[in-house]
Amino acid sequence: MKFIHTSDWHLGRQLHNQSLLDDQRHVLNQIIELAQQHHVDAVVVAGDIYDRSVPPAQAVSLLNEVLTTLVKELAIPVVMIAGNHDGAERLGFASAQMIASGLHITGPLNEQITPVVIKGRSGVSAAFYSLPYVEPATVRSVFDTAATSHQEAMQVLLEQVQQQIDASNNKVKNVVVSHCFLDGGEESESERPLSIGGADKIAPNLFSEFDYVALGHLHGPQYKGQPHVRYSGSILKYSFSEQHQNKSVTLVELADNAPAQVELLPLTPLRDVRIIEGFLADIIASSEQDSALDDYIMVRLLDKTAILDVIGKIRQVYPNVLHIERTGLMAESAQLERRTDHIKKGEMAMFSDFFSQVQGEALSEQQQACINATLDELHQQEQSQ
Amino acid sequence: MKFIHTSDWHLGRQLHNQSLLDDQRHVLNQIIELAQQHHVDAVVVAGDIYDRSVPPAQAVSLLNEVLTTLVKELAIPVVMIAGNHDGAERLGFASAQMIASGLHITGPLNEQITPVVIKGRSGVSAAFYSLPYVEPATVRSVFDTAATSHQEAMQVLLEQVQQQIDASNNKVKNVVVSHCFLDGGEESESERPLSIGGADKIAPNLFSEFDYVALGHLHGPQYKGQPHVRYSGSILKYSFSEQHQNKSVTLVELADNAPAQVELLPLTPLRDVRIIEGFLADIIASSEQDSALDDYIMVRLLDKTAILDVIGKIRQVYPNVLHIERTGLMAESAQLERRTDHIKKGEMAMFSDFFSQVQGEALSEQQQACINATLDELHQQEQSQ
Repeated sequence: MKFIHTSDWHLGRQLHNQSLLDDQRHVLNQIIELAQQHHVDAVVVAGDIYDRSVPPAQAVSLLNEVLTTLVKELAIPVVMIAGNHDGAERLGFASAQMIASGLHITGPLNEQITPVVIKGRSGVSAAFYSLPYVEPATVRSVFDTAATSHQEAMQVLLEQVQQQIDASNNKVKNVVVSHCFLDGGEESESERPLSIGGADKIAPNLFSEFDYVALGHLHGPQYKGQPHVRYSGSILKYSFSEQHQNKSVTLVELADNAPAQVELLPLTPLRDVRIIEGFLADIIASSEQDSALDDYIMVRLLDKTAILDVIGKIRQVYPNVLHIERTGLMAESAQLERRTDHIKKGEMAMFSDFFSQVQGEALSEQQQACINATLDELHQQEQSQ
Repeated sequence: MKFIHTSDWHLGRQLHNQSLLDDQRHVLNQIIELAQQHHVDAVVVAGDIYDRSVPPAQAVSLLNEVLTTLVKELAIPVVMIAGNHDGAERLGFASAQMIASGLHITGPLNEQITPVVIKGRSGVSAAFYSLPYVEPATVRSVFDTAATSHQEAMQVLLEQVQQQIDASNNKVKNVVVSHCFLDGGEESESERPLSIGGADKIAPNLFSEFDYVALGHLHGPQYKGQPHVRYSGSILKYSFSEQHQNKSVTLVELADNAPAQVELLPLTPLRDVRIIEGFLADIIASSEQDSALDDYIMVRLLDKTAILDVIGKIRQVYPNVLHIERTGLMAESAQLERRTDHIKKGEMAMFSDFFSQVQGEALSEQQQACINATLDELHQQEQSQ
């Protein structure tokens, strides 16, 4: 029994106002290929399908394409839950009418947590228990309990799951699909916290009893507590803080009398997300050796002088530069004191930078003298006012 | 072969800021009952399912409930198209995965207009050709044609439909489902025009060849050209201009060698939409004989004097009064000239009205004298400034 575990697609998300739909389509197509290549029996998507509750229509179309390919053309069942970014009602619309086709979407939490049982080609079956992201308040209203924290709410949900499990039948493997924050999990900058003050954290040992736990929410692939309690991570780097993460989907194999076998299948992005640090001239010069000029780039610029249209200059070599951090200037300005003679000195230096950038050559001595005279005149006028 | 033809549900619509979800649920439940009662073989919904492209989540949940009841519990297939109010991509999400369950939603226009063929209990089958609302530009891009008007675009679509029809097989009845504006159709205030300047109008005779044409867009039930080319009308009165319309769904019966038989099945709203005209005192007095005080009411008030908190007073008897038209005041103010002596006379009259409404009795002679003296004093001060 083999399935792909993925999560945090965040369809419709932007990176610094840049649409990522093409990038998302690119890696989703890889997931489709991997699903075929590894002859998986299911694809599990553990929440944050969309980036927001009302996704752009193009994101809806993209998801529609991907699901139609998986479910209709390839006949691979898909199990999918709503995450904290999804609009549960919208995502779950008409889901009861999709079950017959092998598409199992859980939007809002159901009072009856019915598993999706899928029989693998190997003969081993797995029961997938879908627990969409919910606030403790929702669990309280659906199950008439007093749970106030995410931990307590998850305990209530898992009790419901346990009631459905036939303990005498060890032929069926039990998989929980959930979107939550495990205590000790490593965060990235691109996740939206589930709550403030730590009430969102769940102890990993709650999940020990299951054969596999397919989690969503954290964007870096990782496990907590035990190797079978696992985040697949997002399909793309959704912030520059993730530049060193390797994105992947998780191939899970469940066999009789053996723990879950896990393999990370890497995803190759259409454009990587990278930070480049250096002086403008060096960055432009060394770009000639860079074979991935289309990557999404953030530049940490070390130059300490004012530069006209920095982003335009970098865009000439890196067309998808998205953000500039003037690290050099910030360090400089932190050191400078606010004295008048500095400002005076600054004007000449700034004009000189400006001139050499626009003209491509430095000010001549004569030109410098002329500018100095003009600045002096302006200052005298200022003082006489 | 029997089916219910309905359209223009506009789920999520408001009437003067009043949510109509309860009212919509009420009549949709009637449609479900009628479908059972008449043993229909299908329910056809000809567009404007939602009121806007991003409907409120509660409207999505309501549609989900209704479709689950019809398709899953009662096993009645549903054929549904997007109208000009719907977001085609959103409405059509995962529709390919719903077909196996008997739910046939057409969101965006497909290059391949495949009919849904449903066999009736009578043995007669019908092929439903779904033509969602589209701009001529969409038809141009999908079918590579030069159509500029809605009429030309519809001709292109109907040619596509005709190509699929097996003329030799007169056992299958052909039904077109469309959301458009037929020339000569009677409009209501609650429809959104498809285009400005008349380029949205389609000649009814384009549809002559089909056995039935289930239309959506116009909110009053009506046919144009021939009785089988028909609008079912909306399920509720969505403006006060529709107060005299009777809302219904259309029961259609198709038999061999006979024209379509049509019967209007009336819908009874939870609360009617009515206009009441009269003087405040009369309206309140006669409300004692009114057995439908919960209706949505617009009042055309004939009183010519200022009245404090009119809507509050009417709400005490009609809790769902939504709008007041001061017909009397408007007529009065149109007659009055803007002279100083009128304004002077007006102040006393206005105060006198105010006093009697707040105190429940008229000003005494002594009080009148006192107010007159105060007003005179104020006017003198005004003139001396």
